[in-house]
Amino acid sequence: MNLEPLRKAIGSLHSCIIASHVDPEGDAIGSILALGMALENLGKDVAFYNESGVPRALRFLPGADRVMTRIDSVNEYDCIFIVDCGEIERIGRLRHRLEKLNIINIDHHLTNSGFGDLNYVDAEAAAAGLVVYEILRGLDIPVTPPMAMNLYTAIMVDTGSFRYSSTSPRSLAAAAELLSAGGFDPWDVARNVYETFPLQRMKILGEALGTLELACDGKVAFMHVTRSMLQACGATEDLVEGFVNFGRSIEGVEVAVFFREKDDDAWKLSIRSKGSIDVSAIGGKLGGGGHRNAAGCKMQGSLPEAKKKFIQTLQEQYEWHSLTR
Amino acid sequence: MNLEPLRKAIGSLHSCIIASHVDPEGDAIGSILALGMALENLGKDVAFYNESGVPRALRFLPGADRVMTRIDSVNEYDCIFIVDCGEIERIGRLRHRLEKLNIINIDHHLTNSGFGDLNYVDAEAAAAGLVVYEILRGLDIPVTPPMAMNLYTAIMVDTGSFRYSSTSPRSLAAAAELLSAGGFDPWDVARNVYETFPLQRMKILGEALGTLELACDGKVAFMHVTRSMLQACGATEDLVEGFVNFGRSIEGVEVAVFFREKDDDAWKLSIRSKGSIDVSAIGGKLGGGGHRNAAGCKMQGSLPEAKKKFIQTLQEQYEWHSLTR
Repeated sequence: MNLEPLRKAIGSLHSCIIASHVDPEGDAIGSILALGMALENLGKDVAFYNESGVPRALRFLPGADRVMTRIDSVNEYDCIFIVDCGEIERIGRLRHRLEKLNIINIDHHLTNSGFGDLNYVDAEAAAAGLVVYEILRGLDIPVTPPMAMNLYTAIMVDTGSFRYSSTSPRSLAAAAELLSAGGFDPWDVARNVYETFPLQRMKILGEALGTLELACDGKVAFMHVTRSMLQACGATEDLVEGFVNFGRSIEGVEVAVFFREKDDDAWKLSIRSKGSIDVSAIGGKLGGGGHRNAAGCKMQGSLPEAKKKFIQTLQEQYEWHSLTR
Repeated sequence: MNLEPLRKAIGSLHSCIIASHVDPEGDAIGSILALGMALENLGKDVAFYNESGVPRALRFLPGADRVMTRIDSVNEYDCIFIVDCGEIERIGRLRHRLEKLNIINIDHHLTNSGFGDLNYVDAEAAAAGLVVYEILRGLDIPVTPPMAMNLYTAIMVDTGSFRYSSTSPRSLAAAAELLSAGGFDPWDVARNVYETFPLQRMKILGEALGTLELACDGKVAFMHVTRSMLQACGATEDLVEGFVNFGRSIEGVEVAVFFREKDDDAWKLSIRSKGSIDVSAIGGKLGGGGHRNAAGCKMQGSLPEAKKKFIQTLQEQYEWHSLTR
């Protein structure tokens, strides 16, 4: 990939905003922190921005306290780097105030619309953090230990702790280099990201696992959480994030669905598949969308009705016999 | 490390047994499969041995079907490679039949007793699979795709999916090289290792989470499973493996204990710590043992009595104020 336009742009700018998408995970936050620190080390004036702020579990990242959730004087900056966003809308309300700024789009989404004045999109990269790391390396900008920890976290999170198919030799080699540069313990990163759950999450997980049932000869797993279950556990809705994976992890299950009660007879579905079944098509037919192995949608009706309709939709899409490995 | 003794030994042998420890995980099985395949490719006659056989979740590994749980004519072989065993006793009953065989000890345990006629122990390595990989590379023995998948799995499992402190630049760089050599999808490895649980595991997990309670101002987490709970879920005891980690993953928890009922008023404890607390000392005081962050022991008495005694032992070892981060 050609780094020259980026080299020129960075050379000429004096100040910039670095922003990523709302509801950020480790890749979004780690990437903006590392990129911003690198630019600061080059003498630039940098504002770190994320509309949602830094989630609790990521506040251990070096520099996390510098991320702002609002910026008043946007026009005082030369440009904005938008990182890890397939669409400019993903940064939130700030998008309406960017008329006067140069936009530099740094991303790894295949679907990136090329919304920047300068676009550096590497759809082969497992993480935005990997794109940022390779930019810094390519431009000979030194990676300091705090930058390394941020970029390592970014790559770790977006590859699912080096488990997903996106885990390439390139991702692992970059992680090795970052760990060498880092002066941090990988376990400190992992335990902060994966092991800092509130007690209430474990309580509601126990309840949710009690609802687990298999359908379609064990190929489909259903689990749910109602508002009253949440209330009884003193848990908030965000704590059920990732519960669908417990259904997916059952032997023989091809598709897992987690139903979250939103209102009376209104459900939000998280849908996951393990192998070749494309759940984005199922989510799409039910008015939602997503990726091949991870999709979502909303449904109305009682829970038994919703499950029945889900199975019908699944079977319209896949012949029964194809629901085998 | 000096590879010459190993180079000579391999050069002169015609046949060998490759064995690892009872109750094997991915490191034990992946390492013996890769090492044995490498020796076969050099024209050696190889027998793969593990007393416990290959656990269900690891049967996806290339060559797993070749692992034997008994060997009749031990003395027909020139030597035995014992891999991933700190003590020779770890291979099980076969140890009584090795008088006539040369023993080659390949390991990464700090506590390895040096029981071999030839010992190649690298206590800095995160996994036996990493030791085997570096031996093959050092001796210029080609790593074929099935060998690469086995060694990748070995390193992944022993570093906890690249999360533990043992995850070094060296482990990650080796994983990158193995993935390059491999022709396999890392997700295929991860989903086989981490996502092929029987439904009953999820059911008993739900029940166990219902028993979760915190003590010592939220710094200690207790969870348990009784025999009647297992029975009600149709679950076997091996399915509760790793449940202690759910307690450990709670914010603020420093020590997690999982009690498994063995007999009336007899409990098996799994003890884990997150940070600096050394639970091997606690396990030791209670008649068991282990590592700094992972230990175990057995206790007698009712569950409330056992919990009380555990807390007393913990507090004798650690002043109350040291139970903070």
